[in-house]
Amino acid sequence: MASMLLSRQLTCCLQQNSRLLVFGHRYISQAAAKIDVDFDYDGPLMKTEVPGPRSRELMKKLNGIQNAEAVHFFCNYEESRGNYLVDVDGNRMLDLYSQISSVPIGYSHPSLIKLLQQPQNLSTFINRPALGILPPENFTEKLKESLLSVAPKGLSQVITMSCGSCSNENAFKAIFMWYRNKERGHNNVTKEELESCMINQPPGCPDYAILSFMGGFHGRTLGCLATTHSKAIHKLDIPSLDWPIAPFPRLKYPLEDFVKENQQEEARCLEEVEDLIVKYRKKKKIVAGIIVEPIQSEGGDNHASDDFFRKLRDIARKHGCAFLVDEVQTGGGCTGKFWAHEHWGLDDPADVVTFSKKMMTGGFFHKEEFRPNVPYRIFNTWLGDPSKNLMLAEVIKVIKTEDLLNNATHAGKALLTGLLDLQARYPHLISRVRGRGTFCSFDTPDDATRNKLITIARNKGVVLGGCGDRSIRFRPTLIFKDHHAHLFLNIFSDILANFK
Amino acid sequence: MASMLLSRQLTCCLQQNSRLLVFGHRYISQAAAKIDVDFDYDGPLMKTEVPGPRSRELMKKLNGIQNAEAVHFFCNYEESRGNYLVDVDGNRMLDLYSQISSVPIGYSHPSLIKLLQQPQNLSTFINRPALGILPPENFTEKLKESLLSVAPKGLSQVITMSCGSCSNENAFKAIFMWYRNKERGHNNVTKEELESCMINQPPGCPDYAILSFMGGFHGRTLGCLATTHSKAIHKLDIPSLDWPIAPFPRLKYPLEDFVKENQQEEARCLEEVEDLIVKYRKKKKIVAGIIVEPIQSEGGDNHASDDFFRKLRDIARKHGCAFLVDEVQTGGGCTGKFWAHEHWGLDDPADVVTFSKKMMTGGFFHKEEFRPNVPYRIFNTWLGDPSKNLMLAEVIKVIKTEDLLNNATHAGKALLTGLLDLQARYPHLISRVRGRGTFCSFDTPDDATRNKLITIARNKGVVLGGCGDRSIRFRPTLIFKDHHAHLFLNIFSDILANFK
Repeated sequence: MASMLLSRQLTCCLQQNSRLLVFGHRYISQAAAKIDVDFDYDGPLMKTEVPGPRSRELMKKLNGIQNAEAVHFFCNYEESRGNYLVDVDGNRMLDLYSQISSVPIGYSHPSLIKLLQQPQNLSTFINRPALGILPPENFTEKLKESLLSVAPKGLSQVITMSCGSCSNENAFKAIFMWYRNKERGHNNVTKEELESCMINQPPGCPDYAILSFMGGFHGRTLGCLATTHSKAIHKLDIPSLDWPIAPFPRLKYPLEDFVKENQQEEARCLEEVEDLIVKYRKKKKIVAGIIVEPIQSEGGDNHASDDFFRKLRDIARKHGCAFLVDEVQTGGGCTGKFWAHEHWGLDDPADVVTFSKKMMTGGFFHKEEFRPNVPYRIFNTWLGDPSKNLMLAEVIKVIKTEDLLNNATHAGKALLTGLLDLQARYPHLISRVRGRGTFCSFDTPDDATRNKLITIARNKGVVLGGCGDRSIRFRPTLIFKDHHAHLFLNIFSDILANFK
Repeated sequence: MASMLLSRQLTCCLQQNSRLLVFGHRYISQAAAKIDVDFDYDGPLMKTEVPGPRSRELMKKLNGIQNAEAVHFFCNYEESRGNYLVDVDGNRMLDLYSQISSVPIGYSHPSLIKLLQQPQNLSTFINRPALGILPPENFTEKLKESLLSVAPKGLSQVITMSCGSCSNENAFKAIFMWYRNKERGHNNVTKEELESCMINQPPGCPDYAILSFMGGFHGRTLGCLATTHSKAIHKLDIPSLDWPIAPFPRLKYPLEDFVKENQQEEARCLEEVEDLIVKYRKKKKIVAGIIVEPIQSEGGDNHASDDFFRKLRDIARKHGCAFLVDEVQTGGGCTGKFWAHEHWGLDDPADVVTFSKKMMTGGFFHKEEFRPNVPYRIFNTWLGDPSKNLMLAEVIKVIKTEDLLNNATHAGKALLTGLLDLQARYPHLISRVRGRGTFCSFDTPDDATRNKLITIARNKGVVLGGCGDRSIRFRPTLIFKDHHAHLFLNIFSDILANFK
């Protein structure tokens, strides 16, 4: 343990010396109070500790009907605006977690309020259709305005779902059908297949698998959970499937000081991927697809190089496996591109890309060859919700009009630069600063320190989220600007200076 | 085949002779044009065949971005009201399918319009929270007004989800955790469990199973799909789990003529359930729970007696298995009670009851002993949607104020009586008429006849749904009244009289 701490400090010193300005004093904001989002508040305003008395009272009530121990505090969403979340005790906090990364353009955005107030939109909110059989007149048009207007290159098809888990579950299904269809040479289905599938047996239910990575998170329903390997609490006691799990690179920071080590680490992981595909095929379990997050989010914000992902894509193609990129948390613009995997510069696009959270609706894009050739195969009652598509179309309009992808790059740079400064000054508290766009994070020495920092920050008016076993992740909205970064950095600098 | 047809006709003759008035002429409505739902239309109004030219044009467009072959027609939801669905070609149809049984109080209900127009509700629709960590102030209150006000007796706990599949998936997980906790004697979790679960292996991921019934439908995500056995198209090509599948009774109609045979059939199925539990335990696969629908809906509206379910509940208790009742399609009042399983008169309540569709939000009720003892175990980003809870609270108010459960009983009786009349007159087309409340159905000779009847009915202004391999199911809204039943019966009587 002592040697681990030592090596971390060494890493930080290296980082500090190699490229950072070292301030002898606290971080000083350059433009902390600038307001360029009209409806945003101008800063945090704290009245009680958080959770306050009203939140505690409500937590007790909720705990009577469900385990409410995960609740941080209760919110007053009517008063929440822009980047600021207001709680039921009147505390106003700068929100850098945005409902586990699921609020795209801030709270109570005027464009969405206007949308709700238009009488012609009422029907969409109260008459929820079974989209697969009785879609509304504007269904295709809204999909084109929203999802298809930001579709990853080469993926012309899209299906909507109600949440992230359902998106991955159905993406797996589309992959299994595609693979089986390939395997049976697009011939007719046999009677044996039709009968055996009804009792969960092969050949109708073939022994196919999705390869996933240790540290990945892809949802919590049984299929997804077989590919999720971030925390034991998610998986304990739930039966699972014997699907292959590859190691995900564990990069050393600062990246420029560990170029060779990191290349070796990535090569080791890729080799293991190929070995697993071959090994599982030998035991008659076919890897039909590979699922990966562009940045392992729940698992601790683990990054890999663009080169790693390009090579992974090549391996998938080489072995005839579908390449599924899970953009549930990374998608929607926070990395500075609409989809994080667009940074990789793939020659051959991903086969399937799943989304949810900031996209307001779940679902997945896919190449045309993954399209089911028969109706009702990828299907459920709701297949998403047109009211979410309607709001998403508006959100995407705002993202484009307000140039929010470039904003994420810019504000992310301000945030990352500040974090690197803080790391240089508090290497015993902050290490492995990393990020793309505003999708930033750093490590703390341990779980206890991380949680303490989050609690102190919250009481100083900043909502932060944790991930992995010791990381703090930044997941602000897309209207998080440079001045919000500076505001946070000032507050956090104070916290670190006084941390005991 | 000829003998099957003959025996069906014989059954129908018996039914006809034993208890039905036989009309020599077509069914005559008693009150076909009465309007007692203010915002409802007064009848169907057809302008084109369905799908009409505008629908066909839109289907072609949608088919460019996803397989749209399941689409019946495109809808004009703004113009749809009450029991009437209006399509994009201006056709107005009496809707007895209500978006696969998911519209509780009709289209464009004035109470829901008013709800949407209240400025204080705006925030709930545009600020979707991560309910498990940052719930809105009124969260518990809205759950009490809505779900908890109709909670099945003995089930004090409720968790919301985004759809039916997620509801069953998470109910399975709650059952697995409960079972494992019992098994390990509520002791601490071992290091071996924590480590093995991360790689999908026992003991951390134990070899537990959910027992389901042939013909059942519980959703289409991988865990749910292992318990779904209604149609091959749902399951083909998707890997599954070796979980036990019991036969579901296939009752003979009219019930009063086959009392003994049906009792024997139910006893046979129950015996098989016990045998499977024992057999699977012998091969070290533990049946942690049993899932069943009160009426197998997708699988063909298969009923069993209240006694069957009471005995099944006893078997579950005897073997220490959780008893999970899937009320996704049967729940919400259409059978004349809020939950179909309330008809059974159980001494010991079900352990877990799942819901979705008409409840507008997914989720499940459960006994307190199924409550996870640690936070984050049953969890995901959204955990449902407060805007759906808000609407559900209003819907339940309407159900209570307008006495819609009694209405379902009453209107259901009008519908069922009429169907029995039609069966008596057209035994070659209609058989096995059955139902509870408005949750009615009948069999047709075969798939082709069934589909033809549905198509003709649609062109005459009535939307019907199929289920199983030859059944037509009725799933009207809760504001479907006697006069709607008579209106349908008149139209359908004409169709049968002219059917070739």
